[in-house]
Amino acid sequence: MPRLLLPLLLLLLLGELGALLAPRRRRGAPPPPPGPYLTRYLSQQIDHFGFDENLTFQQRYLIADQHWKKDNGPILFYTGNEGDITWFCNNTGFMWDVAEELNAMLVFAEHRYYGESLPFGNESFSDSKHLNYLTSEQALADFAVLIEYLKETVAGARYSPVIAIGGSYGGMLAAWFRMKYPHVVVGALAASAPIWQFGDLVPCGAYFTIVTNDFKKSGTGCSESIRNSWSAVNHLSSTDAGLQWLSSTFHLCSPLKNLQDAAMLKSWLSETWVDLAMVDYPYKADFLQPLPAWPVQEVCKFLKDPSLSDKLLLQNVYQAVNVYYNYSGEASCFDMSETATKNLGQLGWYYQVCTEMVMPMCTDGVNDMFEPQKWDFDALSEECFRLWGVRPRPSWVLSMYGGKNISSHSNIIFRSVTWFLYNSYYRVLQELQLLYPPELMHTKSLQTAAL
Amino acid sequence: MPRLLLPLLLLLLLGELGALLAPRRRRGAPPPPPGPYLTRYLSQQIDHFGFDENLTFQQRYLIADQHWKKDNGPILFYTGNEGDITWFCNNTGFMWDVAEELNAMLVFAEHRYYGESLPFGNESFSDSKHLNYLTSEQALADFAVLIEYLKETVAGARYSPVIAIGGSYGGMLAAWFRMKYPHVVVGALAASAPIWQFGDLVPCGAYFTIVTNDFKKSGTGCSESIRNSWSAVNHLSSTDAGLQWLSSTFHLCSPLKNLQDAAMLKSWLSETWVDLAMVDYPYKADFLQPLPAWPVQEVCKFLKDPSLSDKLLLQNVYQAVNVYYNYSGEASCFDMSETATKNLGQLGWYYQVCTEMVMPMCTDGVNDMFEPQKWDFDALSEECFRLWGVRPRPSWVLSMYGGKNISSHSNIIFRSVTWFLYNSYYRVLQELQLLYPPELMHTKSLQTAAL
Repeated sequence: MPRLLLPLLLLLLLGELGALLAPRRRRGAPPPPPGPYLTRYLSQQIDHFGFDENLTFQQRYLIADQHWKKDNGPILFYTGNEGDITWFCNNTGFMWDVAEELNAMLVFAEHRYYGESLPFGNESFSDSKHLNYLTSEQALADFAVLIEYLKETVAGARYSPVIAIGGSYGGMLAAWFRMKYPHVVVGALAASAPIWQFGDLVPCGAYFTIVTNDFKKSGTGCSESIRNSWSAVNHLSSTDAGLQWLSSTFHLCSPLKNLQDAAMLKSWLSETWVDLAMVDYPYKADFLQPLPAWPVQEVCKFLKDPSLSDKLLLQNVYQAVNVYYNYSGEASCFDMSETATKNLGQLGWYYQVCTEMVMPMCTDGVNDMFEPQKWDFDALSEECFRLWGVRPRPSWVLSMYGGKNISSHSNIIFRSVTWFLYNSYYRVLQELQLLYPPELMHTKSLQTAAL
Repeated sequence: MPRLLLPLLLLLLLGELGALLAPRRRRGAPPPPPGPYLTRYLSQQIDHFGFDENLTFQQRYLIADQHWKKDNGPILFYTGNEGDITWFCNNTGFMWDVAEELNAMLVFAEHRYYGESLPFGNESFSDSKHLNYLTSEQALADFAVLIEYLKETVAGARYSPVIAIGGSYGGMLAAWFRMKYPHVVVGALAASAPIWQFGDLVPCGAYFTIVTNDFKKSGTGCSESIRNSWSAVNHLSSTDAGLQWLSSTFHLCSPLKNLQDAAMLKSWLSETWVDLAMVDYPYKADFLQPLPAWPVQEVCKFLKDPSLSDKLLLQNVYQAVNVYYNYSGEASCFDMSETATKNLGQLGWYYQVCTEMVMPMCTDGVNDMFEPQKWDFDALSEECFRLWGVRPRPSWVLSMYGGKNISSHSNIIFRSVTWFLYNSYYRVLQELQLLYPPELMHTKSLQTAAL
């Protein structure tokens, strides 16, 4: 398996969630704790699309109605992605911010196979038979059934218009949810949803070029330093002494022992740069890690001279990484297995990458600052077969959700990754109000109206 | 299981196909043989929605391109329903009629588990494990994958707009196909598609009231005679002599032996009346059976006096039934197991009724002429569990396809059951041309345009 790309695939999806992080925060102000919410469970079919398996599981969802205007006030529905729903709930400040203004109920629905919503409990990941119901289609069906249940059981919610909101993979789900279930949600806000990161819809290197550009513009010599660091690691890791030096310089909790460990180090560094670009907010924040404002600029202060010798360059890289992992100054050593994604269901996401979520990604070291790595579908397929006995179907998501042919859908707002959410915030709010005009709140027609 | 209603459920869906029967036929003119077509097969995933089962099967489809204008001429795509696709191909004259005018390619796609498209060959119906992939969702996915395959492999078809066409269950599929895959089909013509025959969207007796009204208006005393015939059968079947009399009067190939057989007779009679109403064309036709023009009027000529004694009444009923089953005069006895649905996959449809296709139907003997029978979901559920080990999920189709909340979809023409297709024929053709304006034929935008 391409060792570099799978973790990045994971991160690509997760880090971008920042786009839904409360955007009104003033520089330096910490995000407020989200309001109180209730935790609920709904019994769902494990298999919506077949009748042989008639078992059910408990899907967790969180509900906050303190600002909700009963009698059909709107429902903002977070389409949970690959992780514990409480984490997304705590990190989707946008929804908490607008709840009062829109008199909205907030619902955060956990994605099956993540957090507590495990169809087969501890057995859920035991083999491909138990994993068979981990698909986006099943997750969307869960969401549809949950919303119908809420409309039937929550007094005053019967004609509430529902708006799907999600970021990253959750953003794809929000968009796809509106596409496939327009009778359930009147619209969707899809933040940083890479719905075209499939097939050959975009160049496989596009994402890493964007990340690189952020480093390029954040300091002279910065992206070049990172580009040169890979061969520096390669040189040093060819000897035992070099491996030792790397382990001590990077303060690793477990020392590197071989080339495979050195590859882990490079993968961990790559992840770090991607993470940093994704949380490069203009304000101090604590999304993936506690960080200063403009963290990439902070990082780049250590990476001004790409022409340094291997050891001096890598010592600077360590200083740079330190900004990210040790901004609080508390880490005594770095555990490469503890990346920013610890809140997330890596195993489940790996399975999804191995089946439906086949997003070709590559680096060339020219247009980007990463070690060159081609997109290797066959290697992915072999690794997936080895791990789970399944084969990815790279064209299925395109057949199912339409690729770029989405013009017949309506009421989907796509927000791209951005490091400047301030200006766009009010526009998003305006757009949401267009989707949900208060004066129409009591009309039944809005329930499925294509506005 | 309600013995009356399950066969009727089946028929409800099948007979209505007449709506797509070539409508331009002059009174008395037989339907022309359809043009030549090629038979093809495409390898399809048995399970589009899960990755544990990675087997494939051969889906059959028929293709006729003699009128097709290469370079993106339109494709009329028949969304096959519960039967051998060649039967639908031969009985959907509408498509053959308009092919030349629209310069259209015709494609008839067989529904999985019917005709030759058996996922597990002879094992396909062996148990609920093998039947697990018989759902409308899987069938729609087959259609989407097939169309994408045709666009990729047939020279000149890449930007061909595709219009889904189907009748009855196939009409539901056509409509749902446009709803769920608007990137694949620009529109749908759904003939006699009872997409609201689920949940409580329409009264469960609506359909039988319509059938009854056709008999009511076709002759004085006609529907009353039929209404009275049930108790006549019941009286006679309470004695062995009566059973014998019934067997001989109705020229049954296998004599009735008990009350259960008598119930079969009533069920068979009911089916016959429903069939007749559905093929009550103003022209001589041979759709379900060879029949005269206005067959219900012919039938009603024998059913003018509802006040006759049991035996006289039933002798008249026999004469009436004879119009339907023996118009050609060739039948020596009647085999109740041979109804008009012999071309169709009853076993598969039974399974679908037992899972997704839960369409509540009932009769009351007051608003309709049938023996009263309540809709009994529990009995259906028990019977389904006994037969297949599955339980029907009556609300799933509503969650999946939206029930009456379909206003955000576009380009779907619903044609209701009608005995007068002449007038509406040109309107449908006009509407199809709106969906597919020739002057836009070469533009890529039409591929998924919501016109």
